[in-house]
Amino acid sequence: MNDFLNDIKFNEQGLVAAIAQCVHSKDVLMMAWMNAEAVTLTLQEQRAVYYSRSRQSLWRKGEQSGNVQKLHRFALDCDGDTILLTVEQVGGIACHTGRGNCFYKTASDNGWQINQNVIKSPKAMYNE
Amino acid sequence: MNDFLNDIKFNEQGLVAAIAQCVHSKDVLMMAWMNAEAVTLTLQEQRAVYYSRSRQSLWRKGEQSGNVQKLHRFALDCDGDTILLTVEQVGGIACHTGRGNCFYKTASDNGWQINQNVIKSPKAMYNE
Repeated sequence: MNDFLNDIKFNEQGLVAAIAQCVHSKDVLMMAWMNAEAVTLTLQEQRAVYYSRSRQSLWRKGEQSGNVQKLHRFALDCDGDTILLTVEQVGGIACHTGRGNCFYKTASDNGWQINQNVIKSPKAMYNE
Repeated sequence: MNDFLNDIKFNEQGLVAAIAQCVHSKDVLMMAWMNAEAVTLTLQEQRAVYYSRSRQSLWRKGEQSGNVQKLHRFALDCDGDTILLTVEQVGGIACHTGRGNCFYKTASDNGWQINQNVIKSPKAMYNE
């Protein structure tokens, strides 16, 4: 486990970028950050554990909403500063807005275009 | 154009993370950074233009190697701090090591496993 950490280049804040991609659709779901502990827990628990910069604490994805990301593959890029997680997105919702993924705004000639519907309202996701 | 920039949350260094994904295979190719000028040029030129943190200058992807990334879709995530480019990767090589993409190291029980062959040597890519 320590060997993996040695090859990861954490930034000045002790964080590394982590992209999550759906193992089935190959959609890019989200991008978040991990500290060393989050990396270790992700590998140990075989589910995505991030570090929340706003809350300054570990963030087990899906802990509240149930939308856990089960790990299929943990890859590191050539220069060691970006992780790519291939995951099974339980519930099919990765975004806190209740959409399948976070990249629902697309640049068009008329400004941003919203191209994903909300599957479940945030209220329903977090208060059930 | 300015409208797009207004919605992007650049970090303290004036940068935003940008993920490139292949429009055909849906493989995640790489992650790099953009400043405001790189964002503007990417949208204007319809090709990926990044900001190289090591060289501290604009980096028109493929300028030296020919491995240009033609833009198909420019998406922004829910909190505005990550861009997802859907691109056509000219030459099929996104990584400076000569591989199809940068995520060729996978965590396994026996350490990192290399799971992509080099398509073209870096020497051949940059010196031709």
